[in-house]
Formats: sequence, C-alpha cells, structure tokens
Amino acid sequence: MEKEKSALVVFSGGQDSTTCLGWAKNRYAHVETITFDYHQKHAVEIEQAKKIARILHVPNFVMEINIFAQLDDSALIDASLDINAKHRNRPNLPASFVPNRNAVFFTAAHAYAQKKGLDHIITGINQTDYSGYPDCRIPFVESLEKALNLGSESDIKFLYPLIHLTKAETFKMAEEEGVLDIVLKETHTCYNGDRSVLHEWGYGCDTCPACKLRKKGWEAYLRKLKK
Amino acid sequence: MEKEKSALVVFSGGQDSTTCLGWAKNRYAHVETITFDYHQKHAVEIEQAKKIARILHVPNFVMEINIFAQLDDSALIDASLDINAKHRNRPNLPASFVPNRNAVFFTAAHAYAQKKGLDHIITGINQTDYSGYPDCRIPFVESLEKALNLGSESDIKFLYPLIHLTKAETFKMAEEEGVLDIVLKETHTCYNGDRSVLHEWGYGCDTCPACKLRKKGWEAYLRKLKK
Repeated sequence: MEKEKSALVVFSGGQDSTTCLGWAKNRYAHVETITFDYHQKHAVEIEQAKKIARILHVPNFVMEINIFAQLDDSALIDASLDINAKHRNRPNLPASFVPNRNAVFFTAAHAYAQKKGLDHIITGINQTDYSGYPDCRIPFVESLEKALNLGSESDIKFLYPLIHLTKAETFKMAEEEGVLDIVLKETHTCYNGDRSVLHEWGYGCDTCPACKLRKKGWEAYLRKLKK
Repeated sequence: MEKEKSALVVFSGGQDSTTCLGWAKNRYAHVETITFDYHQKHAVEIEQAKKIARILHVPNFVMEINIFAQLDDSALIDASLDINAKHRNRPNLPASFVPNRNAVFFTAAHAYAQKKGLDHIITGINQTDYSGYPDCRIPFVESLEKALNLGSESDIKFLYPLIHLTKAETFKMAEEEGVLDIVLKETHTCYNGDRSVLHEWGYGCDTCPACKLRKKGWEAYLRKLKK
C-alpha cells in the first residue's frame, strides 16, 4: 500500500491500463492519468480513456504525440499497411511495432510527473502475452527509469503490476480491484477500432491479434479463475 | 575512422552540433542530420540548421516535437518566463531546463535511425560547460542508449565527441574539422534568438547565459588555442 504517495497511470483506455487504474486507485492517496494521442488508427480508445477516467473520478491529461506520424513506420498509424503482417523495416517484429513507442510515452509521462510532483508511474506492460514488442520487458523499463531520473535529477519510480500476468489473470485482477465491469464494457483493445458488436469479452473485430488475445484470455479466465 | 558506417547528427544549428557535423563528415561514409522544432522561442536556429545542412550537403529532417509546448514548463518555450532565473518547479535547475528534453530528442533520433538504418547517433552534449543540465552527462546517455536498444532490439551507438571539451576547445575542434567559418557566421546559440549584430564570436544578444558562454569560450580560444 502506498497511501501517502501519488501515482500517474499511463492510460490508453485499454484492458490493461484500466486494470492498472483500478489497482492504483485502491493503493494511492492521489491518482492521475495520462493518455497519448499519437494519431493511432484506433483513436476510439482516446474517447474511451476520457470516459473511463470520468467514471472513475480521476484527472485525465490527453497529450498529443506527433513523432510517430512523422516517422510513419507502423501499421498502427499508416492505414495502408496490413496490421497482421511483419514489420516493413524489421522482419523480426510485427507490423504494429512503433519504433520507441513506449520509450516516448514513458519519457513524456515522466516529464509530466516531474511537473505535477507525482511519485510513481504505473504502466500496464506485460511480457507474458506481449505480442512480440521488445519495449514491454523489465530490463527496458529499468534502464529507461534510470536514464530519465539521471537526466532530470528525479526519483520517480515505474511500476508494472501486470508484468508477469496472462490476459486471463489480468481479467482476474480487474475483478479483484472492482473494475471488471468497466473493463468489459468500456475498454478498447481492438487494433481496427471496431466497437460495433459487444462480445462477452468486450467490443472488437474478433480477428486482429489484440482481439484474439483478449478473447482467449477471457475464455481462460472463465474456465480457470472466475469465482 | 568509421568510413563504412553511417551517422545521424542531432543537429540544432548551434555551435556544438555544427562542430559535430564537421567531425562526422570527416569520419563517416554517410551522414544525415535531424533537427527538432519543439516550439522553442529561438526558432531562428531551425532556419540556420537547414541552411548549414545545405551548405555542408547533408540531408536534414526537421521533426516537430509538441510535447514540451503541452507541458509548458520551461523558459525556453514560455516567453513570459525569465530565462536567467531558476526553474519554476525545480529550484536546483535553471529556468531554461526542459524536463526530459534530451531524452525525447535522443529517443526520436533513435527511432529515425532505426527507420533509416543508420549506425551511430552523434550528439553535441558536453558536461564541462553544460549550463547545469543533468541530461548532458555520460551516465544519462549510456543508460538511455541501453534502454532504447533493448526496447527496439537495435544496436545503435550514441557518440558525443564534445563531452569533455570546453567551449574554447570546441572552437578549436571546429577549426580542425574545417567548419570554423560556418560556426562563426551561421550557427545560432543565443537563447533570445537575436541575430542583429555579428560579434567576433558570432551572432547573439551578448547577455543570455548561452551568449556569455560562447563569448567566453571564443576569448579563451583566441588566447590559448588558436594557431
């Protein structure tokens, strides 16, 4: 418990960061959220992030990041690229890989935490079901935390409570932290921004890698972890 | 000598990065430059950067960074703040400190280097006359390099040839690398964006910390290092 400290949740409006927000709200005296508008194709998640922040009564700052649109090197941003393919310049990574995405997000969040005097930064990264993204692993975040604190004479700590959880366990944590209903109805995960059909596991196209992962996780949660 | 490798120079159009560009051009098979438009008050440096890149026949990519304008926490961006005072939120740092500025710049440059397949990133940081900025020191850049490479499965190296040089020694290096004339007439250093008077040491207001440092360095160069 960190009842005397404050936290900034890096908040995409997706399942993972909403679960983190529930977790943080139950542990910190003061919680804020930061959401990044990086010109992503699935911009619907920004609207969901704002809505969830309102429902949970936490401040939400939407920061526009225009770096990736200028680099134009990911199927998450360029609508002409196939989201299910391999990355154009990096054959060992998925097309959805955005170079240094979490590095930029965490650096911007760290600068915001400096300005607002917030103690911890909470991120929903996990390396279990990490979709092949190398910027979702502990050594990366630990090195970045060290660099950012050295570069600003700060002592802001990054926490990642989902790091070792499967998607099924993340559904379980949402249940335990009292946000499962919001996760199911309000969070956005789908890479294609599809919110036309509410499945049992949430909204989504049911075919992109993010939807498949979420659905599989939900089914495993139902089978093994639900009370 | 790195005649088989390529380099990306983080290029502000100032004395230090222009000296680095001269240094890189004499050492690499292929050199590109990246310049950041971060809504700085002294935006004149961007025009000088483009001009110097043209003079030296190297590609220049200007990337807009809108993070700091949204944070609005530095006298380098907010014209209402006194550039000579202490930082509003960080009394141990100067008002010109921009939280995580080099972290954002180096992260964006690293993403650009990934896209373009460039091997090294050259930056003009130095910790001798570093104006009190903690993001100009070796441990910071080393940690950041490690984090960025881990987070993107890359192996891009940061180099900082001016790290231990005084301003006087940087003038000397510009002379040795054949860019002293460009440094004097075309580079921009002044925090106030003043290019009305050409002093012996270059253009500038002659009163801001950056001008004072440049003038002092020039005088020491003349006294001790000039051939």
